[in-house]
Amino acid sequence: MRLLHEENVRDIALGAAVLGTGGGGDPYIGMLMACAAVRQYGPVTLYTLDELADDDLIIPSAGMGAPTVAVEKLPNGDDYVSAFQALERYLGRSARATMSIEAGGLNSVVPIYVAARLRLPMVDCDGMGRAFPEIQMVTHTLYGISATPFTLADVHGNVVLMETINNRWTETFARTIAVDMGAEAATAMYPATAGQLKEAAISGTITLAETIGQTIRQARSTEENPVDTVRNAAGGFLIFNGKITDVQRRTTGGFARGDARLEGIDDYRGQTLTLHFQNEHLAARVDGVYKVTTPDLIAVLDIDTGEPITTEALRYGCRVAVIGIPCSGKWRTDEGLALAGPRYFGYDVDYTPVEEVYE
Amino acid sequence: MRLLHEENVRDIALGAAVLGTGGGGDPYIGMLMACAAVRQYGPVTLYTLDELADDDLIIPSAGMGAPTVAVEKLPNGDDYVSAFQALERYLGRSARATMSIEAGGLNSVVPIYVAARLRLPMVDCDGMGRAFPEIQMVTHTLYGISATPFTLADVHGNVVLMETINNRWTETFARTIAVDMGAEAATAMYPATAGQLKEAAISGTITLAETIGQTIRQARSTEENPVDTVRNAAGGFLIFNGKITDVQRRTTGGFARGDARLEGIDDYRGQTLTLHFQNEHLAARVDGVYKVTTPDLIAVLDIDTGEPITTEALRYGCRVAVIGIPCSGKWRTDEGLALAGPRYFGYDVDYTPVEEVYE
Repeated sequence: MRLLHEENVRDIALGAAVLGTGGGGDPYIGMLMACAAVRQYGPVTLYTLDELADDDLIIPSAGMGAPTVAVEKLPNGDDYVSAFQALERYLGRSARATMSIEAGGLNSVVPIYVAARLRLPMVDCDGMGRAFPEIQMVTHTLYGISATPFTLADVHGNVVLMETINNRWTETFARTIAVDMGAEAATAMYPATAGQLKEAAISGTITLAETIGQTIRQARSTEENPVDTVRNAAGGFLIFNGKITDVQRRTTGGFARGDARLEGIDDYRGQTLTLHFQNEHLAARVDGVYKVTTPDLIAVLDIDTGEPITTEALRYGCRVAVIGIPCSGKWRTDEGLALAGPRYFGYDVDYTPVEEVYE
Repeated sequence: MRLLHEENVRDIALGAAVLGTGGGGDPYIGMLMACAAVRQYGPVTLYTLDELADDDLIIPSAGMGAPTVAVEKLPNGDDYVSAFQALERYLGRSARATMSIEAGGLNSVVPIYVAARLRLPMVDCDGMGRAFPEIQMVTHTLYGISATPFTLADVHGNVVLMETINNRWTETFARTIAVDMGAEAATAMYPATAGQLKEAAISGTITLAETIGQTIRQARSTEENPVDTVRNAAGGFLIFNGKITDVQRRTTGGFARGDARLEGIDDYRGQTLTLHFQNEHLAARVDGVYKVTTPDLIAVLDIDTGEPITTEALRYGCRVAVIGIPCSGKWRTDEGLALAGPRYFGYDVDYTPVEEVYE
């Protein structure tokens, strides 16, 4: 058990945007909201899963929608609280704590905001160890935990609640409702006990994000190569250094989808890397050959600062380093790959662990 | 108080399809389901609103979606019960009775089916005195009754529940969810007390539908002109006799939208009538001039049998009579016309009561 103060929140937001593989939303607004909430209501208590009783109820809090929209359409905070409390009311039971459903930029700090406002603790875990675009893509699903009851709330005060027969249906309904809400909605979902999560969740994600964030921050004031320090902190591999020369991006079906083309620089001169994304970076091809694919993490870092660049911020001329990070072993099962592997997203390639390619 | 047996159900379904102004869904499947339920569980008790205590809770039961889809994608009945019971559970209170939200074909008999299965009575009223394509278009809205809590259920077992800040938002969310559910969903909505409904609802609709249905049935075995008898029973005016020469129909956004063109026969030879519909017939123009518009009722009847033809069944070669029926006075207010008048649907014409044109 430890306390999260403003500085911790800033580091978590920064580091989670690396783990978010370009998705999970730009953490900037959420970070400011969470910092303001921590200032106003006091620091948030972070528990490890082991510190909780097996029957403690944990409710994740998150935003969902297209990150391209989230940059311009801001949450007001009440929407997150409203979604969370609607789920508690429906369950007839109060949450013992909240957690991040994904290690995305925005979704790593939204639960801190909700925890501060509701004076709840937060748990040091998540359901992905990264970010993924669709609701069913969490380790909860692999362990049979239902996404529902699931609530969505908007800034106007509308609340939608659902009970679905499986987590894929939750994604279907929630995505169109999020579009109706303006392609950005506040949600609460996957209510589960700490006992279930000790098996199903990915532990220590918040602390890992914080460590990565600290590394980036400290690299600003040292002579170290910031990309190298991030890569080391995250346990990843350098895939490419390049300059973005083209970005095709469209916001459709409630997602930010597209491709980015990078021309190699330094040791990679003459090579071309293509990034494919759907909110998150899902596949990287070098000269047409798949090198890293989902569920492994693909992070795009500013080559000078090591700071992560989210998919909606990719733009012509950025000089970036692309790193690959091994995903949680939970994703490397047949079930995990069926749920979030390259073929689910339509990439005609089998998954190869990034360390087998680059070690 | 009286009992609805199979024969009553058949007459109600037939007559409600006249009041449904081409919408509310083809009653055939719903009528068979309601008849089977009445056979299995016994007749349904029909109360007038006056026979209920002011604090009795009434929950309407209905299908929503595109009638073109409903013809092929059948409800299984459990979906209606599931939506209804989910709303009761959410309210923490059992309904005293159910009712029709609209006098449409399918939606006049769905509540009979639910009433029979749940051994509930039904109330002799509705929220339109006709059918309308959008959820907020009920007299409940004019009297400040919220559409929510509102539930949707599908044949798979998925349930979505919502609380919205106004009834237009309910329409927005429910429409896209209904599309996700296959453009056809079972719903329960507008929970209200009998006290509220004594003011807000349109009384006697079920009995009126039954009377019209009886008239059509009896005309089969007499020498009377069936269109005239229906027109008299419904209190309407003959607008046109014609043959359908063209139907443009598309199923978009969860609606069946389109236009039908009729070439005049008999006294109307040489004239052309154009019908505009969105699930329901909303406007009729003769030689380009608007003659009848929403909220007045436009019913298309088979010229030989007097039987109503729903918008999804309009087809080339049908010989039909078009009749206009005055709507409830509740719609003829500024608020009523703003909610469901011609300009809401994009027709550039002021509303003129049908009796002013044809009397």
